[in-house]
Amino acid sequence: MHAFDLVVIGSGPAGQRAAIQAAKVGKKVAVVERQAVVGGVCINTGTVPSKTLREAVLDLSGIRQRAYYGDAYRTKSDIGMQDLLVRAESVIKKERDVIRAQLLRNNVAIFQGCGSFDGPNTIVVENEVDRHQLGAPFIVIAVGTRPGMPDGLAVDHKTVLASDDLLNMPRLPRNMVVVGAGIIGLEYATIFGAIGVNVTLVDKRTELLDMVDREIVDALIFHARNRGVILRLGEEVDHLEQSGDGRDRAVVMKSGKRIAAEMVLISAGRVGATKDLALEKAGLSADARGRIEVNGHYQTRVPNIYAVGDVVGFPALASTSMEQGRLAACHAFGVPATTLPELYPFGIYAIPEIAWVGATEASLTARGVPYETGVARYKEIARGNILGDPDGMLKLIFHLETRRILGVWGLGTQATELVHVGQAVMAHDGTLDYFVRSVFNYPTLAECYKVAALDGMNKLRGVSFT
Amino acid sequence: MHAFDLVVIGSGPAGQRAAIQAAKVGKKVAVVERQAVVGGVCINTGTVPSKTLREAVLDLSGIRQRAYYGDAYRTKSDIGMQDLLVRAESVIKKERDVIRAQLLRNNVAIFQGCGSFDGPNTIVVENEVDRHQLGAPFIVIAVGTRPGMPDGLAVDHKTVLASDDLLNMPRLPRNMVVVGAGIIGLEYATIFGAIGVNVTLVDKRTELLDMVDREIVDALIFHARNRGVILRLGEEVDHLEQSGDGRDRAVVMKSGKRIAAEMVLISAGRVGATKDLALEKAGLSADARGRIEVNGHYQTRVPNIYAVGDVVGFPALASTSMEQGRLAACHAFGVPATTLPELYPFGIYAIPEIAWVGATEASLTARGVPYETGVARYKEIARGNILGDPDGMLKLIFHLETRRILGVWGLGTQATELVHVGQAVMAHDGTLDYFVRSVFNYPTLAECYKVAALDGMNKLRGVSFT
Repeated sequence: MHAFDLVVIGSGPAGQRAAIQAAKVGKKVAVVERQAVVGGVCINTGTVPSKTLREAVLDLSGIRQRAYYGDAYRTKSDIGMQDLLVRAESVIKKERDVIRAQLLRNNVAIFQGCGSFDGPNTIVVENEVDRHQLGAPFIVIAVGTRPGMPDGLAVDHKTVLASDDLLNMPRLPRNMVVVGAGIIGLEYATIFGAIGVNVTLVDKRTELLDMVDREIVDALIFHARNRGVILRLGEEVDHLEQSGDGRDRAVVMKSGKRIAAEMVLISAGRVGATKDLALEKAGLSADARGRIEVNGHYQTRVPNIYAVGDVVGFPALASTSMEQGRLAACHAFGVPATTLPELYPFGIYAIPEIAWVGATEASLTARGVPYETGVARYKEIARGNILGDPDGMLKLIFHLETRRILGVWGLGTQATELVHVGQAVMAHDGTLDYFVRSVFNYPTLAECYKVAALDGMNKLRGVSFT
Repeated sequence: MHAFDLVVIGSGPAGQRAAIQAAKVGKKVAVVERQAVVGGVCINTGTVPSKTLREAVLDLSGIRQRAYYGDAYRTKSDIGMQDLLVRAESVIKKERDVIRAQLLRNNVAIFQGCGSFDGPNTIVVENEVDRHQLGAPFIVIAVGTRPGMPDGLAVDHKTVLASDDLLNMPRLPRNMVVVGAGIIGLEYATIFGAIGVNVTLVDKRTELLDMVDREIVDALIFHARNRGVILRLGEEVDHLEQSGDGRDRAVVMKSGKRIAAEMVLISAGRVGATKDLALEKAGLSADARGRIEVNGHYQTRVPNIYAVGDVVGFPALASTSMEQGRLAACHAFGVPATTLPELYPFGIYAIPEIAWVGATEASLTARGVPYETGVARYKEIARGNILGDPDGMLKLIFHLETRRILGVWGLGTQATELVHVGQAVMAHDGTLDYFVRSVFNYPTLAECYKVAALDGMNKLRGVSFT
């Protein structure tokens, strides 16, 4: 039995951050990782590869230069999967190195193998060569998720893929059906659409991204369609058919429609990767989607066992998962830590990307909070024109009377970066006035804040007679 | 005599913003513009063209992709001046349209012609066709600057250029000498260096950018040299020589050194474009560099006449010039307006770009303010690796005791955007703790704030025993 202060199962963003936080306060920590490499789905098959593919597509497709050179412009005329993969592999390798170096620098022990419970304070790690027993007063479960599969569909990892298979895609198809228009489905549909694949995006829901402000969703859908992505909403896939020679697929909908597809990508939600944990030996269980329930401190029903990251469900973002890991470790070892959950930012790396902090217009209307909005469009901003992105926008939602910022919504180039300016102002109870009296570097997209604020101020004229 | 509430001379960022601000509060405004097009040096020959060239160079050179594909990678193998100009022209045209539309939408009258004083309340506008007299209780001088020329040097607009000539450059030279390593000289030297021109940058000073934090300047110089730019500091140009056939130039230094140069770019400061204003008829005068002195409200010696923008000298940035225009108009018409001058951001669009808000380490040491720093490097950040920019960095300078943020320094991709997050925190008296407990979208460069803050917090351990 190896004795530790903390054992973390999983080396993705949540587990890694929990381990580092505990190590920083002098604790002896072990991380158990099932794969031969650290980083989890985030680094190896999910977030980082998809964002790197996205950046490669933006570079290689020349999409950013079409504002100057016309819609036919391509940076590279014949883009293959290999062009995209070489970048993903390079970035993945660097990120693994960064994480491994950080864990080792902080004296975190790494055990490679499948971890499972053998009591509430004991983890068994098994691989093909050996078997270890790790004991610790605290355990953090950060095992993440794997792709979920709708009834009747199965992946073959060749023409029918789950999102974790993307790096194994042998070639870029001419046409592709993406099943499931959640965040992952939308990201891949717009990324492959941007590089010239004929993409059909199918979802049984009729409204997409219900947590996102309507104006932003509408704009995202407009731009996706404008670049050729076909949306089939309110449609459910019944089954897939295959031609005799196995080369062609047809996706058959419950409505009877048929869509030709050289490749099918299933992105129908994800389930917690808890199957092999032997949770019952720790007095725990997972729900039907493999998820583990936690309280506000990320403690499971067994208080010395925490669960963090995608395995606890929404929002299942690398950014929030890291924070959960940090908070769990701080709670376990009595380190004071505060966080600002109402100001967690969200980013969707579709093309165009969207991001936000705070409230939607609809939620404020429902709660009876009087607000006004100020909008800036990239086409009015020098940097927007320099970047060749006239379609981007930034919307500030602010309280009609106090002018406090209630929400920041961005769509377009660097939207996921830009929202952090608004987030900082919101965290300090700032108002629209801050943006009016601030100076922003010229030419930057951040100028949108000033333009949007002035737009908002102008709208306030004449709305009140007191 | 046409009667207005305000006459603004010049339609660059400063003049434009003064005019719009006055119009927004119901004033009758005229803008006088000497050129056939609006926008001033900023839009037509300076800021916007240079930043667009820069973006085109980054796109076309493939410099961003070399982290993946190796140092020999080029997006386009044979980059000509025309490839760069087509983008500059497109953006310039769009920006002119944006400004003209904004002026017209706000009922600002535009008079094309050379404006000059005929008394403190009267401006005469003359062009080849006609002559107008404009009268107004308030005048704003926003005439900007033109390139200054060191003794003994003269431009021929063909092989010896001033910075405003760049768009007329007939071809990309093999080698180039840039005289003057101020902001403009550094920007052009690194931009042309990045596209493969052999650049030598000459300055009689031995220290560059004395307002910039040393660590950042040192890194900028390292990267400039690393990409092939040769620096000759402490050297003054004596004269230029020309070969018999006029094709080759040599730059001869006072030290006797000779540098071959197919093209010479003179960027030796700028002088106020006040020569034709007949300032004496308004009771005003300019200094030896053509600049006009103003008080804190941007009033000249004659209180109803304001001067704003580059013509008043430092910092001569489009961003601050706009703010000066806004403040002058507000002051003239008794509109309350506040600003945050100590939080004006600065950006230098060299390759790599640098940006900052607040204090340098050296200035705090000189003032006896105890501080510590926290640093994040892009190579530790997923977005830095995805963008292929491992060299970028973000440095937070914070007070050792209060942990208030005193300065934010960035170098690398999007540094000019990134600093606005720190600026917002500084404006609200925020501390390092904000960044520790905040969540940032993953993967973004904004994560540097959290990494830098954690680095700073770690440094605080053990420095105090009270």
